[in-house]
Amino acid sequence: VVRLIALLFPIALNAAPDTRTPTDIITQAPAADWRPIDAKRTVVMTLDAGEVVIELAPRFAPEHVANVQTLATERYFVGLTVNRVQDNFVAQWGDPTQQRSLGSAKKTLPSEFSIPFDAAVFQTLPDRDGFAKRVGFVDGFAAASDGTQMWLAHCYGTVGVGRDTAPDSSNGTELYAVIGHGPRQLDLNITTIGRAVVGIEFLSALKRGPGASGVFDKPEQGARIRAFKRGDASLKLEALKTDSASFQALIEARRNRRDAWYARPAGFVDLCNVPLPVRARSG
Amino acid sequence: VVRLIALLFPIALNAAPDTRTPTDIITQAPAADWRPIDAKRTVVMTLDAGEVVIELAPRFAPEHVANVQTLATERYFVGLTVNRVQDNFVAQWGDPTQQRSLGSAKKTLPSEFSIPFDAAVFQTLPDRDGFAKRVGFVDGFAAASDGTQMWLAHCYGTVGVGRDTAPDSSNGTELYAVIGHGPRQLDLNITTIGRAVVGIEFLSALKRGPGASGVFDKPEQGARIRAFKRGDASLKLEALKTDSASFQALIEARRNRRDAWYARPAGFVDLCNVPLPVRARSG
Repeated sequence: VVRLIALLFPIALNAAPDTRTPTDIITQAPAADWRPIDAKRTVVMTLDAGEVVIELAPRFAPEHVANVQTLATERYFVGLTVNRVQDNFVAQWGDPTQQRSLGSAKKTLPSEFSIPFDAAVFQTLPDRDGFAKRVGFVDGFAAASDGTQMWLAHCYGTVGVGRDTAPDSSNGTELYAVIGHGPRQLDLNITTIGRAVVGIEFLSALKRGPGASGVFDKPEQGARIRAFKRGDASLKLEALKTDSASFQALIEARRNRRDAWYARPAGFVDLCNVPLPVRARSG
Repeated sequence: VVRLIALLFPIALNAAPDTRTPTDIITQAPAADWRPIDAKRTVVMTLDAGEVVIELAPRFAPEHVANVQTLATERYFVGLTVNRVQDNFVAQWGDPTQQRSLGSAKKTLPSEFSIPFDAAVFQTLPDRDGFAKRVGFVDGFAAASDGTQMWLAHCYGTVGVGRDTAPDSSNGTELYAVIGHGPRQLDLNITTIGRAVVGIEFLSALKRGPGASGVFDKPEQGARIRAFKRGDASLKLEALKTDSASFQALIEARRNRRDAWYARPAGFVDLCNVPLPVRARSG
């Protein structure tokens, strides 16, 4: 077991304990540990409060991602609202009445709850998880697996696609983002298309809708979507690579805080508590 | 193992699967499964957005709870602000400059990070937890234990007491509530005094402060605390008893959603994803 851990965390075992805070580690990460976020794989939603940038995960939901990109190009969401804000759960936007024209987007899609497990792309987090046999990161997203299939995990900021009771009843015209404690019970029950990399706080800080489900009585009571576009060259963001030494140090710093404030390191990190650092890039 | 599970969840094993949703279970819970929330063990903070009711946990932090009650009686917090709102972490309020008179409240207190484990009051959740050997509920609060000590777990809504680097540097003049994914790495590192039972959304929906820590440059940029009082007889709330059959059914419904929407029950529930139902009571 020690060898396995040493293999996974060579830095942690071979050197003196790293007493840096997560913030220090992120600040000090070398340029090579960052990857540009591909603007073409993003959509950007503008609310009055600010912009939410969503990085898409085409590997996990190619059909839904493509449909959402078509909807964005054709301005489907513009003028619609965030018509559901349920505290400690999700904010949801789109057309609950399903009356808006779909344009060239597809009306029906297969469900895309999971894809075959691929060990070559799955970076395993050794900390055990109650919901899945294996958790970790794929393409920079928090992910889980049963060894056969893999899927995006519902953590804070994860973006998915609303559906009715039938598993294949979603087409991307209603989207949601997690704004509370990771509702992992949704994993494998719904199609996820990515995560908010910037601006999730503009959804989390929206006024909650009434009642248990947070659905506004009238959609127009929700925050208005001023724009919803595919990202373009003006979007200059970079994310810490999840396979970098800096990210491994960051995980270890979350697992065992060694800076002076902490009296007792936790010895464990929850998948949904690993930060996925994103920042503006120059050039 | 089956016997142990049967002992813990007689209803789940001896009857047909309960296909009710969590909402159904809460709605149908008999009156005997609810307990009045003792107003004397609450403090109520009024923001412009609404009231936050905090149920206090004197068993876990008797000295801090008493000091916060004194501060509330003496109107310590009135006119101060929520001077830190860090996305997916905490909202914090009080006097960061520590210049306000403490009145008859104590200036220094011992740290109260945990208390001796008491099997008689600890209702164990069988689902495994990465952070602690045992998790469950004590006095209606989410709690954790290593078998020797027990403490409140940092879940959405948990309220704690800010401190400096020294473990015993808190006195209750700076408080925080969790507004994101449960930061369980704080467990055993800080004194917790209870949880928001009503109105946590008024803290979660506050505009985030700038920078990584969410601290406003000037405290007056944060939401103003209009009132901060001990609860009185006008506060009529009740909570679902965590040792009731309804609560056990609710946990099982969260663990394995059997209503038609769910294609695949999770088979697991995270401590911080168990709802702690609270509602208005009549009379």
